[in-house]
Amino acid sequence: MLPRGRPRALGAAALLLLLLLLIGFFLLGGDPECERLEPDGRAGDLGCPRCPLTPRVPSDGRLRGASALHGDPLAGHWDHNRSACDPWPQLPPKCELLHVAIVCAGHNSSREVITLVKSLLFYRKNPLHLHLVTDAVARNILETLFRTWMVPALGVSFYHADQLQPQISWIPNKHYSGLYGLMKLVLPGILPPGLARVIVLDTDVTFASDIAELWALFAHFSDKQVIGLVENQSDWYLGNLWKNHRPWPALGRGFNTGVILLWLDRLRQVGWEQMWKLTAQRELLTLAATSLADQDIFNAVIKEHPELVQPLPCVWNVQLSDHTRAEHCYSEAADLKVIHWNSPKKVRVKNKHAGFFRNFYLTFLGYDGNLLRRELFGCPSQTLPEAEQLQRALAQLDEEDACFEFRQQQLTVHRVHITFLPHKPPPPRPHDITLVAQLSMDRLQMLEALCRHWPGPMSLALYLTDAEAQQFLHFVEASPVLSARQDVAYHVVYREGPLYPVNQLRNVALAQALTPYVFLSDIDFLPAYSLYDYLRASIEQLELGSRRKAALVVPAFETLRYRFTFPSSKAELLALLDSGSLYTFRYHEWPQGHAPTDYARWREAQAPYRVQWAADYEPYVVVPRDCPRYDPRFVGFGWNKVAHIVELDAQEFELLVLPEAFTIHLPHAPSLDISRFRSSSTYRDCLQALKEEFHQDLSRRYGAAALKYLTALQQPRSPA
Amino acid sequence: MLPRGRPRALGAAALLLLLLLLIGFFLLGGDPECERLEPDGRAGDLGCPRCPLTPRVPSDGRLRGASALHGDPLAGHWDHNRSACDPWPQLPPKCELLHVAIVCAGHNSSREVITLVKSLLFYRKNPLHLHLVTDAVARNILETLFRTWMVPALGVSFYHADQLQPQISWIPNKHYSGLYGLMKLVLPGILPPGLARVIVLDTDVTFASDIAELWALFAHFSDKQVIGLVENQSDWYLGNLWKNHRPWPALGRGFNTGVILLWLDRLRQVGWEQMWKLTAQRELLTLAATSLADQDIFNAVIKEHPELVQPLPCVWNVQLSDHTRAEHCYSEAADLKVIHWNSPKKVRVKNKHAGFFRNFYLTFLGYDGNLLRRELFGCPSQTLPEAEQLQRALAQLDEEDACFEFRQQQLTVHRVHITFLPHKPPPPRPHDITLVAQLSMDRLQMLEALCRHWPGPMSLALYLTDAEAQQFLHFVEASPVLSARQDVAYHVVYREGPLYPVNQLRNVALAQALTPYVFLSDIDFLPAYSLYDYLRASIEQLELGSRRKAALVVPAFETLRYRFTFPSSKAELLALLDSGSLYTFRYHEWPQGHAPTDYARWREAQAPYRVQWAADYEPYVVVPRDCPRYDPRFVGFGWNKVAHIVELDAQEFELLVLPEAFTIHLPHAPSLDISRFRSSSTYRDCLQALKEEFHQDLSRRYGAAALKYLTALQQPRSPA
Repeated sequence: MLPRGRPRALGAAALLLLLLLLIGFFLLGGDPECERLEPDGRAGDLGCPRCPLTPRVPSDGRLRGASALHGDPLAGHWDHNRSACDPWPQLPPKCELLHVAIVCAGHNSSREVITLVKSLLFYRKNPLHLHLVTDAVARNILETLFRTWMVPALGVSFYHADQLQPQISWIPNKHYSGLYGLMKLVLPGILPPGLARVIVLDTDVTFASDIAELWALFAHFSDKQVIGLVENQSDWYLGNLWKNHRPWPALGRGFNTGVILLWLDRLRQVGWEQMWKLTAQRELLTLAATSLADQDIFNAVIKEHPELVQPLPCVWNVQLSDHTRAEHCYSEAADLKVIHWNSPKKVRVKNKHAGFFRNFYLTFLGYDGNLLRRELFGCPSQTLPEAEQLQRALAQLDEEDACFEFRQQQLTVHRVHITFLPHKPPPPRPHDITLVAQLSMDRLQMLEALCRHWPGPMSLALYLTDAEAQQFLHFVEASPVLSARQDVAYHVVYREGPLYPVNQLRNVALAQALTPYVFLSDIDFLPAYSLYDYLRASIEQLELGSRRKAALVVPAFETLRYRFTFPSSKAELLALLDSGSLYTFRYHEWPQGHAPTDYARWREAQAPYRVQWAADYEPYVVVPRDCPRYDPRFVGFGWNKVAHIVELDAQEFELLVLPEAFTIHLPHAPSLDISRFRSSSTYRDCLQALKEEFHQDLSRRYGAAALKYLTALQQPRSPA
Repeated sequence: MLPRGRPRALGAAALLLLLLLLIGFFLLGGDPECERLEPDGRAGDLGCPRCPLTPRVPSDGRLRGASALHGDPLAGHWDHNRSACDPWPQLPPKCELLHVAIVCAGHNSSREVITLVKSLLFYRKNPLHLHLVTDAVARNILETLFRTWMVPALGVSFYHADQLQPQISWIPNKHYSGLYGLMKLVLPGILPPGLARVIVLDTDVTFASDIAELWALFAHFSDKQVIGLVENQSDWYLGNLWKNHRPWPALGRGFNTGVILLWLDRLRQVGWEQMWKLTAQRELLTLAATSLADQDIFNAVIKEHPELVQPLPCVWNVQLSDHTRAEHCYSEAADLKVIHWNSPKKVRVKNKHAGFFRNFYLTFLGYDGNLLRRELFGCPSQTLPEAEQLQRALAQLDEEDACFEFRQQQLTVHRVHITFLPHKPPPPRPHDITLVAQLSMDRLQMLEALCRHWPGPMSLALYLTDAEAQQFLHFVEASPVLSARQDVAYHVVYREGPLYPVNQLRNVALAQALTPYVFLSDIDFLPAYSLYDYLRASIEQLELGSRRKAALVVPAFETLRYRFTFPSSKAELLALLDSGSLYTFRYHEWPQGHAPTDYARWREAQAPYRVQWAADYEPYVVVPRDCPRYDPRFVGFGWNKVAHIVELDAQEFELLVLPEAFTIHLPHAPSLDISRFRSSSTYRDCLQALKEEFHQDLSRRYGAAALKYLTALQQPRSPA
């Protein structure tokens, strides 16, 4: 069973000699062997495939990958033993930049693309450049994501899908990908003229290997070949799936366009744009519409010009559609390279081996994208300026500093995936308000109740790992209450570092609020049922927009009980307060946090009243969307909201308490950060240091006006 | 920059021809090129390395891997451009079984091994067999783990490290690996005689590639070579690290033994055992002890018999010790194959690129091991009988059944890692009691308080993902209270499926309890401070062991408040009860759960009293360790403890309430399972179905005696 020394080496050498002769023959000669092998005479039409690559040759001389790929019944036109055709693998040079183009539109496809890109990055060893054709939604999401991801040796360019629509919108299309599916046809016209070659991918593919191996297949194109494709792994184009099934014309089983090697400059030379348009127009005289979008048109063109296509090994596009014949490919192959979820059911496709393939997909779905921020050693630095600046700042930190963790956390740039789930921006309304808050997994159970209490738009930042983001997705999908709401925007901020970056999260949620006003809340509070309407009416009545720069204070209460009937009016709330079922918020532990709200006055108030700032005041407020941001230096527990209110006061926001507004804090187990604060004197000392630095900055910005905050700070108090 | 068509193909073919001639020359001839390249004359002594493999050859003809490996200054004796020496890659045949040996002892190394094995499995495409030399602790952990992991095409054999100690314990050793480090020396003697070759790995290596590529290097051994090793990447063996630094003898920089290819049958033929023992004995005449364990002895033997070693490319053991010169290796290489954390600081090593390498390690540390339960397509089935049985049972489930999720969850075999953290078994004491409970991440904050309330042994099952298990580890390490306790055993049960497998978790924790009695508790309860002592005294007084088969009932109470002063006595508890600060457990929602405890009688009781079973009774009890297991069919929320008490009653356990015992439930947010129960009628219907099936089984086992349970079930009640 095991190879034994020299005799084996002799055999291997002899085999190598034979192979080399064959290879030389194929590469240099006119492929007579190839033509001899095609008894059906179609080889000539197709352009005999040039020895696709396989990088693994087992020691027994059996060409593992090759036999799987070419001895494969799926390979149709060239289903003979062509293994001898396999040349030495030729990967692109170590630091060569590889180009990938992807068309992506909408929230769900954006999530798909990120999983695809994670799988690409996991195996890649070359610099990559992504060319992303996107609609406005995907662009917004992916620009933010890649900017904050800061992956070295990864470039990204965006192209407006909207601008391409006129070029393809005349084509009737029944495929679920809609117009976007057709956009692959126009890539040669829109990608930079200097770009000679590109790999085009559907959003629903997953890599299980280094894309450089795929790129290497360009080297096998003949002079005339311009498109590399894997054969379709279903019977669709055979036209026998049902009575009167009439697919677009294709060679045999046709080709699948989920993975395409495009030789762009040659495509431009052969007049690709004219070519596909003429073909499509002609076919549309007899066919009502495309069924499989661009794939129908690619196949029709190839049927007419078979010399254009270089067939690729099946492992580079293992198609898991419902009636796939992919098993013929993967059961023989040693290595799967790219998995294509080309059923509308995607990873939920029914296939007896779907579980096996799903594991690859789930690997990258839950994979911590932060781990992909790794350099390519030995290639010229491809670090972005922002990333370099960040690295310098991090390198300057003193690891021996007791507050090192705090300073490191402050500098951390978190990967941000805005509008993780489908979201409809609220219609423009002059007094509309977005509830802004942040949370992590342990507060998910608050979301349903919050949706019941706040019928308006929300912008929520969630601090999650990649795996938790998937759990969150399932949580929303399983909840009828949550999935019915399209006006709640969920922004995932990926976890990194030991301290909860509370103010960075708030800023992400705040930056994504799309209404003129925001209600800056916390996730463990439930607002009065009427609050949304009441606040909008108050903003209108107070003429906030034009007349005054104000922060509207929503008085905060708390219950210490789980089972609790929420008061439906101020009167009911006051009754609960009197009966001891409710308290003013943190009345026992941290009264100064809300004392300036003046609860006694609020009891009686009939109209909004102004209150003065005092030290440690941290009310929940409604402010214009362009209000000051939260100070990101405050991480973990403590003083994060207090600093924001100081900033509002320094910028001369009036603090107006609303007489009918209230919000109630529900009990929860103490957070890990608050536990650390309570148990660690270092933690408390670091918070004190942060507060002092904040005040120094404040003095720098506001001068003498900031003196009162410093004075207040210097009075001894219990910390918070 | 990009290769262009035919001219490139011609160049590649010419290069191939040249390479082939060179390869033939090397394989068939006497390596004259090799000898010519070694000006220091040592090549002959070393046995000129036979063209180590590199599977990647870039299209520019530069042999990427090869130049990195052999043009590498680290490569010492053969640091010349040997790239032309690279033959065609020869991987082992598709389904060939590869063997790996690892020595592993203790809790921490067991965790390391699992991460290593995950990285192996992630990239492997061949069946593997692990030969694990373990102490009793590691064997216990790893046997359970691999049995429950059920990875197809993975065999595991265990060897007793204890039995090997006499063979090596005479060698004084200063290395942190202790005696276990030396055990690699005796592998040829203890592995099965029919096993010809094995790859030996340290526990602190991580794979970043397919181990078959490493196995393929065996094909390059000359007839005399028996050991494949990578050169050491530090200056240790040069003996110039400090004054009077006197390392063991080695060739140049010596070799690192973190990754070894052992040709076992040849080692046996050359009398390996005699050879290393003689060398070690001789060196120990002048050297006091080994500093680097087995590595010193391997190097001393190789210095004497250089013909035995086949040097391997540096990428197969990239050593990240403190003063590593590994950068010379990895900055040139395209591909890193194996990373070796050979500093005592492990992944916390200070190295300017440690972050890069740590990402590989973290990838597998947090990787969901369930995803590795994937078959190898095209190889004969290597499924274990248990796995096959399970697959059959799962296949028989009806996906349309409304309770499909429940039935699937019941059948799920969770991967189990017992004693995840270091643990000392309690000394044998006749009345000792282990607290048994289960939890998930959202209850971690209970652990410290629980440790303060229960000073005795605990056995806790944690339901976690692989990534959460690491968070848990950090949580314990950061807590002085938790890290001080060695008598708390944490058993990680890996998450899989949508429903919380509460009774499976309880059974894992129960099975691992090592004292004669167990207190079956829940994680959100805190026992009275005195309970541990009181229970032991009660067991002794009641003479439970000999006299009676009893379950001691610990009455349960609850507080609805977060801030709460725990009563230090029964008197204080009664006062809180009277003041309305405490309630009997679930008094409002589910009184029948604890009503039979008879709280009124308990108030006055001075002595233990017997109570009768009644429907839905679910007290917290102390029972012998060999008590009935929990019924694993109850998953998610509801009836999981009730069924266990029914079982105890059916087996005629007396229920004795203890007059001074109490435990108090702390409030927490409702679990997701209870929310689902409340909102889903399907969920409630399925629970009802499970209850009925449970009673049918009960009748089958206990006959007429079980009638009372069925009667009780049929009385209409609110569900729980």
